[in-house]
Amino acid sequence: MNQELLSKLLADVKEGRLGVDQALEQLRDFGSKDLGYATIDTHRELRTGYPEVIFGQGKTPEQVAGIIEFMLTRKNNILATRITEDTYLKVKELCPDVVYNPIARTLTVKRKETSIPQSFISIITAGTSDLPVAEEAAVTAEIFGNRVERVVDVGVAGIHRLYGKLSLIRQARVHVVVAGMEGALPSILGGLVDKPVIAVPTSVGYGANFGGLSALLGMLTSCASGISVVNIDNGFGAGYLASMINRL
Amino acid sequence: MNQELLSKLLADVKEGRLGVDQALEQLRDFGSKDLGYATIDTHRELRTGYPEVIFGQGKTPEQVAGIIEFMLTRKNNILATRITEDTYLKVKELCPDVVYNPIARTLTVKRKETSIPQSFISIITAGTSDLPVAEEAAVTAEIFGNRVERVVDVGVAGIHRLYGKLSLIRQARVHVVVAGMEGALPSILGGLVDKPVIAVPTSVGYGANFGGLSALLGMLTSCASGISVVNIDNGFGAGYLASMINRL
Amino acid sequence: MNQELLSKLLADVKEGRLGVDQALEQLRDFGSKDLGYATIDTHRELRTGYPEVIFGQGKTPEQVAGIIEFMLTRKNNILATRITEDTYLKVKELCPDVVYNPIARTLTVKRKETSIPQSFISIITAGTSDLPVAEEAAVTAEIFGNRVERVVDVGVAGIHRLYGKLSLIRQARVHVVVAGMEGALPSILGGLVDKPVIAVPTSVGYGANFGGLSALLGMLTSCASGISVVNIDNGFGAGYLASMINRL
Amino acid sequence: MNQELLSKLLADVKEGRLGVDQALEQLRDFGSKDLGYATIDTHRELRTGYPEVIFGQGKTPEQVAGIIEFMLTRKNNILATRITEDTYLKVKELCPDVVYNPIARTLTVKRKETSIPQSFISIITAGTSDLPVAEEAAVTAEIFGNRVERVVDVGVAGIHRLYGKLSLIRQARVHVVVAGMEGALPSILGGLVDKPVIAVPTSVGYGANFGGLSALLGMLTSCASGISVVNIDNGFGAGYLASMINRL
Amino acid sequence: MNQELLSKLLADVKEGRLGVDQALEQLRDFGSKDLGYATIDTHRELRTGYPEVIFGQGKTPEQVAGIIEFMLTRKNNILATRITEDTYLKVKELCPDVVYNPIARTLTVKRKETSIPQSFISIITAGTSDLPVAEEAAVTAEIFGNRVERVVDVGVAGIHRLYGKLSLIRQARVHVVVAGMEGALPSILGGLVDKPVIAVPTSVGYGANFGGLSALLGMLTSCASGISVVNIDNGFGAGYLASMINRL
Amino acid sequence: MNQELLSKLLADVKEGRLGVDQALEQLRDFGSKDLGYATIDTHRELRTGYPEVIFGQGKTPEQVAGIIEFMLTRKNNILATRITEDTYLKVKELCPDVVYNPIARTLTVKRKETSIPQSFISIITAGTSDLPVAEEAAVTAEIFGNRVERVVDVGVAGIHRLYGKLSLIRQARVHVVVAGMEGALPSILGGLVDKPVIAVPTSVGYGANFGGLSALLGMLTSCASGISVVNIDNGFGAGYLASMINRL
Amino acid sequence: MNQELLSKLLADVKEGRLGVDQALEQLRDFGSKDLGYATIDTHRELRTGYPEVIFGQGKTPEQVAGIIEFMLTRKNNILATRITEDTYLKVKELCPDVVYNPIARTLTVKRKETSIPQSFISIITAGTSDLPVAEEAAVTAEIFGNRVERVVDVGVAGIHRLYGKLSLIRQARVHVVVAGMEGALPSILGGLVDKPVIAVPTSVGYGANFGGLSALLGMLTSCASGISVVNIDNGFGAGYLASMINRL
Amino acid sequence: MNQELLSKLLADVKEGRLGVDQALEQLRDFGSKDLGYATIDTHRELRTGYPEVIFGQGKTPEQVAGIIEFMLTRKNNILATRITEDTYLKVKELCPDVVYNPIARTLTVKRKETSIPQSFISIITAGTSDLPVAEEAAVTAEIFGNRVERVVDVGVAGIHRLYGKLSLIRQARVHVVVAGMEGALPSILGGLVDKPVIAVPTSVGYGANFGGLSALLGMLTSCASGISVVNIDNGFGAGYLASMINRL
Repeated sequence: MNQELLSKLLADVKEGRLGVDQALEQLRDFGSKDLGYATIDTHRELRTGYPEVIFGQGKTPEQVAGIIEFMLTRKNNILATRITEDTYLKVKELCPDVVYNPIARTLTVKRKETSIPQSFISIITAGTSDLPVAEEAAVTAEIFGNRVERVVDVGVAGIHRLYGKLSLIRQARVHVVVAGMEGALPSILGGLVDKPVIAVPTSVGYGANFGGLSALLGMLTSCASGISVVNIDNGFGAGYLASMINRL
Repeated sequence: MNQELLSKLLADVKEGRLGVDQALEQLRDFGSKDLGYATIDTHRELRTGYPEVIFGQGKTPEQVAGIIEFMLTRKNNILATRITEDTYLKVKELCPDVVYNPIARTLTVKRKETSIPQSFISIITAGTSDLPVAEEAAVTAEIFGNRVERVVDVGVAGIHRLYGKLSLIRQARVHVVVAGMEGALPSILGGLVDKPVIAVPTSVGYGANFGGLSALLGMLTSCASGISVVNIDNGFGAGYLASMINRL
Repeated sequence: MNQELLSKLLADVKEGRLGVDQALEQLRDFGSKDLGYATIDTHRELRTGYPEVIFGQGKTPEQVAGIIEFMLTRKNNILATRITEDTYLKVKELCPDVVYNPIARTLTVKRKETSIPQSFISIITAGTSDLPVAEEAAVTAEIFGNRVERVVDVGVAGIHRLYGKLSLIRQARVHVVVAGMEGALPSILGGLVDKPVIAVPTSVGYGANFGGLSALLGMLTSCASGISVVNIDNGFGAGYLASMINRL
Repeated sequence: MNQELLSKLLADVKEGRLGVDQALEQLRDFGSKDLGYATIDTHRELRTGYPEVIFGQGKTPEQVAGIIEFMLTRKNNILATRITEDTYLKVKELCPDVVYNPIARTLTVKRKETSIPQSFISIITAGTSDLPVAEEAAVTAEIFGNRVERVVDVGVAGIHRLYGKLSLIRQARVHVVVAGMEGALPSILGGLVDKPVIAVPTSVGYGANFGGLSALLGMLTSCASGISVVNIDNGFGAGYLASMINRL
Repeated sequence: MNQELLSKLLADVKEGRLGVDQALEQLRDFGSKDLGYATIDTHRELRTGYPEVIFGQGKTPEQVAGIIEFMLTRKNNILATRITEDTYLKVKELCPDVVYNPIARTLTVKRKETSIPQSFISIITAGTSDLPVAEEAAVTAEIFGNRVERVVDVGVAGIHRLYGKLSLIRQARVHVVVAGMEGALPSILGGLVDKPVIAVPTSVGYGANFGGLSALLGMLTSCASGISVVNIDNGFGAGYLASMINRL
Repeated sequence: MNQELLSKLLADVKEGRLGVDQALEQLRDFGSKDLGYATIDTHRELRTGYPEVIFGQGKTPEQVAGIIEFMLTRKNNILATRITEDTYLKVKELCPDVVYNPIARTLTVKRKETSIPQSFISIITAGTSDLPVAEEAAVTAEIFGNRVERVVDVGVAGIHRLYGKLSLIRQARVHVVVAGMEGALPSILGGLVDKPVIAVPTSVGYGANFGGLSALLGMLTSCASGISVVNIDNGFGAGYLASMINRL
Repeated sequence: MNQELLSKLLADVKEGRLGVDQALEQLRDFGSKDLGYATIDTHRELRTGYPEVIFGQGKTPEQVAGIIEFMLTRKNNILATRITEDTYLKVKELCPDVVYNPIARTLTVKRKETSIPQSFISIITAGTSDLPVAEEAAVTAEIFGNRVERVVDVGVAGIHRLYGKLSLIRQARVHVVVAGMEGALPSILGGLVDKPVIAVPTSVGYGANFGGLSALLGMLTSCASGISVVNIDNGFGAGYLASMINRL
Repeated sequence: MNQELLSKLLADVKEGRLGVDQALEQLRDFGSKDLGYATIDTHRELRTGYPEVIFGQGKTPEQVAGIIEFMLTRKNNILATRITEDTYLKVKELCPDVVYNPIARTLTVKRKETSIPQSFISIITAGTSDLPVAEEAAVTAEIFGNRVERVVDVGVAGIHRLYGKLSLIRQARVHVVVAGMEGALPSILGGLVDKPVIAVPTSVGYGANFGGLSALLGMLTSCASGISVVNIDNGFGAGYLASMINRL
């Protein structure tokens, strides 16, 4: 519930247009919808500027479909991540224009146009195997109203490949850098640009990679400045934050 | 073997109603039943107030069925956790009224009525994906004779959802809070209530979640007071302890 | 701010006894006191039944003294944990009747009497080296109005020592069990009693103890029921929770 | 070496104003100064918008003083972090107006004015013990030309303290949230604001905190969006990134 | 190659019955058989008193069969561990009397009688789920010529079950104790017996068990004496060592 | 881009044979080929002496085939690692003479002859289960122009098997030692030879092996000298480095 | 309380020589002495064949002295481990013939002769830095009545040093092998002897040694048989177990 | 004992110049010197080409001095690492020309000239704080007869500093790269050179560095080829191996 609505409610109480009990009632229920298995945060957009996003992992196809069914009543754009093909097919039954991106494993439904800033987000991957995470970031940034430039497979073992794309990259307002293994690409890039770098470690690798731990620790302890880190394989989180910064 | 029986046995020895050898014999065998692959603790209820519960993981359907077959001779209510559908079908052959809860993955057999206190247990989940663990806790608490109120999907990313349910929650005598990812919900709730909070970390999440480690460590290091923690995904343990506290 | 005060405030607004701006002001500041380096939670007692406790680690003697100076104006009993002797001497200057327990490393100031229930808390240690943590639990439970029975050095390597104290222990309403090394004592006790067991792992040990990790993991994975765990060396947390349960 | 200079150099070569060997020479040496024990990055400001910062840990007082001595010839503002008092006294000999902040453990030298944007950065701590890390962030942000608002000790165990400051916090353009123990504060705040949250885990805590690991993992796996994380106790990194975002 | 054979070889060289080159040859090849994918240690029995045992994990059925085919030429008893049913069927083709134990996942071939000492080995499990590991230990001890007594499911949550079997257990010359979860059983037993205890942690459990880590650390940090530990799930290693001690 | 080409380019600029814009263009694009999902490093051979190698894990069959299709235009020998049979069949369609080694899981295409030095590489495994990793090392070393001698299954439990092969091993110019479990073989060998030892930990084992961690830590902390370590299961890395040293 | 005493007590009850209440009293108190800060296990020797040993770490000099004062009334030999010089001096005041071994950090008091078997224990160290742990093992074995042979600094980097001592080592009945770093020595020795090997990892090393973890994991995953492991730096535990085996 | 000596010994036995018992005696004692607390490996140089090196950590000054005293009788050059100033002063008493390098913490004694190859070793550090480890590598390489070129403080945050030194670096025959924090420098360099890279992680850093773990994992999982890794802070190991490769 935002500042404006709260003032109005208090004014209504003062003017006698609203009883104290009614006000308490409104303050309790405003802002969420209870589906039994989920409590949807219906005023997140008012509060944070973005509608709620569905995290598909651990939810049944029926649960995801049920949540989307409710959200469709709100006319917002919808984003769901970590979605299997089963869930996609279930959702398609009730919303034929849902879009499934099998690389990013995302569902999107477009219901309104969003203004798109002039500035753009660069999304850079160290290797081909990092593509699914990068694509999740890109889909997220795009549905929230951003232009994205993708730069693929420019990891540090052949660092001249990065230099070849540097003049494009430097025009972005914020950078998302996706890397597995030793996760060194954000450190290099961080020393070459003057905009924020969002580092996304991936679980790409084996052995001492320990499920993405090596990239995660490398990015956290980076000797370059202007870098921050999101969870392993969290393309969504990076795309969301990049959108937030790009649209400041 | 409880205090009363021990006194009687010693008295019997003293009065000559029982030989020393017979007494030794009774002291050895009393309290357990040997099935070859399992040694059932038959006097746990006398000792701890609760009958033995079957932990299904790592046991074959035949072993679970065998244990239940013996326990049915005792007229106690029966609870088995971590049960697959195969095992359920095996048990159903010998006990047609067994109840299988596929979300909680529990088997229950009701053989006697338990008194139910006026007070109740609140079981709260941070997200929809935490439901199976919460349901295991609820089934456990209910079979041991407790009323349960479920509050679902009120995690800290939209904390007003919790506030909306707070007046209900505050009426409970003990709280079970089930959360994955960063596991912050018990900390928030612990600062808002005056009753014990049992925190259950879940393995819901990915990456730096490391199988529930992030939620576990977060709950253990909580800056709020009145919180204690059970094992990752241990809905049973939380439901059992909540029952113990609710029935004090 | 509790329910009662909130109703009165809304009623005052309705009746015109309070302007909307004034109401907003009260809602902002009520409940905490800003000292610059600390924001004291002044209505925790209303909310959780217990006044705020000072965690001394990482605070300078001046900061601890400043917080206590403010709290003394409130006439509550005061508890501070993880206190060095330096801090004690600093606090003593402004509050001569402060009590320092050098084993528990606690400061206490008694300003009002608390009712003490008939039931008591048992605090049990596996070894002599676990005493400081146990004593922190005991001081905490006592200042919050509880009777405590201490049972010392009855670890599982000579488990008959525990049996010798079992009839006393079984009369308690809740048990705090403090153990380092493999932390097995709560498992044993949990199988012998019908009341909640709060397990406190300690950092006592060496090598594969890894700073208390062995005891922590052992307690979390206990095969006994009715056990929950607090942080390593967290005597305060166990004493606080035990008080909460004992006073239910 | 930036784009402009590179074009000029190539043009000079083309026009014969510069020989090929001379051009090679310039391309090799431009941009760094070799002190024997350190190679100072002299064109970082051109490249990233910020001059090089000195990381004091592991450097002798003589080494830090030597680096600062050279940097003073450049007329930039100077920032050094993780500085002991010994090093401060050594530097003071050659630069009497150096400022030492003993809480933040920073050295600063002001040599030129920086434009300061209208927008500001909020720096929020969960507890009093998190102050040194927060202060490092604040000093960093200020020397780079930003206005900072500090909000202290509003951790989740008494979350109303945060709400009391929320209207101030919501006016900031970017948030730095500093927390130890379970590190839950960024998750809560992230659900309440529409600007980027930079989370800084601290090593404040004990036991299962494992030197800041609990807070770090909690922040990485946060269920709120718009959050990214820097290294444990890395106040500098957070202040630097916040400055970068605030000055976009 | 043992002492006796070495003396003879040197004597043969001295007496001229063996050339220097021939001696070098014998010293190189004696004691192993090269199969291309495996180098069988053919004089392990002379050196350590036990023939080589086949560790099946990571070997193809063909490789296991090939190794057994060679070993059959030696008239020793044969033991293979971590064997799948596929491998068993492959081996059965060339050795129809091979015995497969599907619980222990072992293959055994009996080719000679071994003397069996009067004393016996007790093999004790904490739970039913620990049976496969215990059975691997039992099969190992038996093929190497030992009498085994099995005690099943006497874990610490109902410790009276252990007491019921204690007089039998105390007659053993060495104890193998198999336990998952918190792994406390060896600590208890170690305080009750005067013979060596070989502790085998198992991966039985979930969550903070971390694949057997909790039991492993608990056993290593046991406060009882006379206990040593083998690898997680290493029933073979425990049975082998118990045989070595029982046959001293 | 190497020194020679850079000089020529600058000279061309100077002489007016090349415009500044054209030079910038060449400097940007030289050295890589963009396939959309991959950016192939086309001048790695000039820079490091070896053509790029394809890491198959996480790439689709189509992606691997696409990369190989491009590389075939370059007339280099091709090596791809971590290749499934599906990918092999896909590649075979466009390159019928590709060779698949199912143990090493490698693809190789031979397009030119490489000089082979007189000296050779020894590749030694501790056990039969380490063969796939060793074979990956061998295939790598061979495609890059080296002679390899394989010594199999000579682990430390029967260390005389190693001694039997020592005179052969000592003739190698560099050693690759592949071992799982405790990973002790490199330590032993390192004390017996005067050439570099490249240690490759494998994930062979179970329990406290923790996916190769035990072998990795053992090799890193080896008390022998002349040993360095590559990632767990990284046969390719070891073969590549061995080739580099053998061809010095 | 042993079998014999228990029979007598029951017989006394039967014959009326002992009342039921008196019997209960004896059963409660027999076997331990309560000192307030410690509960001494006074019938451990009857139960396990060895008197209680004092673990000095975490105990004050006064506490250790108090425990020893009581134990001196029992005429047993006394062993205390992890003892600082302060504690030694305190104990010397009340027991002038106490012996302090500053390398092993042990206190011993000899009060009765123990029979010493013909067979002996070999205690072997990989390096000079492992001596303190080995000496703790040796002191322990000797006070419990065993002959010890020490073999020093024969680690695997120069494995011929071990071979030089092998004929002596092979005459022992049980081996204690103490090693830090990669901890490979037990694996080698285990393949060369036919008696049990007790492996003791030490915290000697740095970096990836992680406080003894590398040696611990290496020993647990050893490919040799007949090896078991005690805690890092646990010389006492190894000496105790070796005594138990040597005296079988 | 080398091949040549062994042949002679066998020939002497054959010819009767040596009795069998005498031969056994020589085979036992040849190659090591027993000092009681250390067993010096006196024929390591024959076997591996390098004399034994003293690892000072965990040894008393007297022990180090005693070992050096014996080694001085052998006329070899001597190297001791991890040496405190106390030990240096103790050794200086018996060997006045010993050289102490306080940064590298090494002792060296020069007793004979070593041939020095034309080729050289580059030793490169990422930061100033990595100097002590790099210097240990340099001293090691130099005492074993190598020319070293040092390149300091060229970490990836300002990667142009590395490029400025690249033409020098590329002339080396082998590279030692020393880096803490994220340890990315070896990955970058590995993609730019055609010679082996020995990566040395250092414990420089804080927080998620976890004592060097971040750099270690980063180097192990490097996406560049031709890289191998030694233990954290193991400058000696890197210098030794570099010498071995440089002198091939």
